[in-house]
Amino acid sequence: MKPLKERLMTPGPTLVPERVLQAISSHPVYHRSAEFKEIFTNTIKLLKKLFRTDRDTIILTSSGTGAMEAAVSNLFSPGDSAVIVVGGKFGQRWEELCKTFGVNPIVIELEWGKSVNPEDIRKKIENNKNVKGILIQICETSTGAYNDIKAIGDITSEYNDILLIADGITAFGVYDIPVDEWNIDVAITGSQKALMTPPGLAIISMSEKAKTRLSKVEKRSYYFDLEKEIKNQLKGQTAYTPAVNLIIGLNEALKMIEEEGLKNVAERHEILAKCARAGIKALELELLPECPANGVTAVKLPEHIDGQKFVSWIKNKFGIVIAGGQEHLKGKIFRLSHMGYIDIFDLLTQLEAVEFALTRIEMYPAYGKSVKAAMEKYIELVHHKPITYRKGS
Amino acid sequence: MKPLKERLMTPGPTLVPERVLQAISSHPVYHRSAEFKEIFTNTIKLLKKLFRTDRDTIILTSSGTGAMEAAVSNLFSPGDSAVIVVGGKFGQRWEELCKTFGVNPIVIELEWGKSVNPEDIRKKIENNKNVKGILIQICETSTGAYNDIKAIGDITSEYNDILLIADGITAFGVYDIPVDEWNIDVAITGSQKALMTPPGLAIISMSEKAKTRLSKVEKRSYYFDLEKEIKNQLKGQTAYTPAVNLIIGLNEALKMIEEEGLKNVAERHEILAKCARAGIKALELELLPECPANGVTAVKLPEHIDGQKFVSWIKNKFGIVIAGGQEHLKGKIFRLSHMGYIDIFDLLTQLEAVEFALTRIEMYPAYGKSVKAAMEKYIELVHHKPITYRKGS
Repeated sequence: MKPLKERLMTPGPTLVPERVLQAISSHPVYHRSAEFKEIFTNTIKLLKKLFRTDRDTIILTSSGTGAMEAAVSNLFSPGDSAVIVVGGKFGQRWEELCKTFGVNPIVIELEWGKSVNPEDIRKKIENNKNVKGILIQICETSTGAYNDIKAIGDITSEYNDILLIADGITAFGVYDIPVDEWNIDVAITGSQKALMTPPGLAIISMSEKAKTRLSKVEKRSYYFDLEKEIKNQLKGQTAYTPAVNLIIGLNEALKMIEEEGLKNVAERHEILAKCARAGIKALELELLPECPANGVTAVKLPEHIDGQKFVSWIKNKFGIVIAGGQEHLKGKIFRLSHMGYIDIFDLLTQLEAVEFALTRIEMYPAYGKSVKAAMEKYIELVHHKPITYRKGS
Repeated sequence: MKPLKERLMTPGPTLVPERVLQAISSHPVYHRSAEFKEIFTNTIKLLKKLFRTDRDTIILTSSGTGAMEAAVSNLFSPGDSAVIVVGGKFGQRWEELCKTFGVNPIVIELEWGKSVNPEDIRKKIENNKNVKGILIQICETSTGAYNDIKAIGDITSEYNDILLIADGITAFGVYDIPVDEWNIDVAITGSQKALMTPPGLAIISMSEKAKTRLSKVEKRSYYFDLEKEIKNQLKGQTAYTPAVNLIIGLNEALKMIEEEGLKNVAERHEILAKCARAGIKALELELLPECPANGVTAVKLPEHIDGQKFVSWIKNKFGIVIAGGQEHLKGKIFRLSHMGYIDIFDLLTQLEAVEFALTRIEMYPAYGKSVKAAMEKYIELVHHKPITYRKGS
């Protein structure tokens, strides 16, 4: 039986709410109009609330990688060193960007799935000269690992000339992260993850410490000129033609987050993550990360299961698009997504697809096992206490 | 926790696929244009395929009830008698329509949930004078009961002057019903059920026997003038301005049915209905109908459960809109919908919602019970045989 419908359940792009789709589905607005300026300014205001900051926050028309490139090219001079945490595909991206822009990468290599020990960052800073910044992922999406960004911020804040540059592409909108309080100098995110908008927009928020650096580094990009963008965007417009429809969509999505309340949004993600982990445990599968993130759950498959076939089968048979592993994890893991416009039923649907696939491959009926565990966990967490049942379980 | 999203899971209106929503979401097309004529003609062609007929089939801009009224007012003269099967809310509607148009209703009253015994129809025909037609629901949506329309058609076809008029609003697109072969003289459906389009369109297909009657009965409606509509629609246009956007949407939906194949569509509905019943059985709940239909599953609730609160709680807590009972079944049943753009995961979502609600009310953890049973049944039916598991269950 061919799947009737397709369900996008990847850790980005994620499902887009109808409200956002409708906002996007209109003629473009002229980007130099007063009408757009109002929407743009409001979007920036809501983004600052998301980052829990008043500092300069700008939107780039690019993928998240564009914002990563902008951070490296605008904040480092050739020959500068950067401590880089590489524990997955997106850590590798920082390394490749450093190489492109002549920045010396001091790599903390982690087994994929591990999180960094913040003290190792301090050691790298102390043992190397000319370290101008830390480049890290708050959540390494490829492994589902969370890095203790608060503890790292405590360390980097001790150094006047070291910037903490955090790719929070699958963290902002999943967690409630106060960037000022946690000393994140450069916070980066994208439209297509927890912000429930199609891909095409990146967001950067910068501390005064970062802005000082900006003014000192010689420009190496025309399109990604952060100083120019800050100057323009403070006046309510972008330097170049922005993706106006996506910004209108992002504005709607941010209003939804505002209505739900950032604390509630973060709590929802935490609850769903815990339900996902409970479901996986019930299937006797193992999580890849030691310290799992709340937006994506990466799960190891038994060695005899080909993970690429596993996710392809789920897509071909059931129209559910869940992500497999990347690079050397290809074929070895799958990743459940519970980020953005996702509720318990969307998570249960993913678990059901996994149960169907496991049953088929293992010839052992897994039906309902993880669903039951995730539902139990859900009610326990929503009630904020274990439930006493009348008739036993 | 407030629900993040709403999921429409009622037995009409049903979920509308994105393809259909997109087709509807454009400026209206001029209804006298060649462009619209082409779409309209193609829509009629596809509707004939749905009814498995070549006979005249027309679209009315109205709800399904409009088509029911059109059938009564165009095909009966005051003083005629009609045998009516009343086993639910929609059977009652036939009775009310008869009273409105001076038709004498000869009622076969059924306990709600029961299906008619076709031989009882023969008896009513034989024992009454001037019976000009049978008015029946193929599926009585309010109870989820299926009537054996094929057996009834075998009976009515023996009588030259008795029309079988079947409300198939929740039957066409759920089942593969050949209206000619089964001697259904007037087949009625609506856009908002298995045809996956928003409400606003009704469809009537008429046999030569019905058309002969049409020419003999004095007109009692201007808007619902079936002869006039047939005459116009044969030329590719409607008598009055039709809901052009809905017709464009219906055209897209019918293309989807064509692509999936009517046999496959019907098989999918049958499989989902059986999965729903397996799930309900696993929860130790009882079906309302003796002969359950494939589009909707009506389930009795234990007496101590208030069904209205039950479905409200599911809606308020989880954003899942499932239907309760109507009339005297209000508060006593709930109805799962598996009609139209619905797959196994949509059904499982409904079962999960029911499990959450039962667990809360009964203080007994139902989690995963019906999900497991429905998943097992699904794989068994899709594989067309019971599965032998390697490790046991």
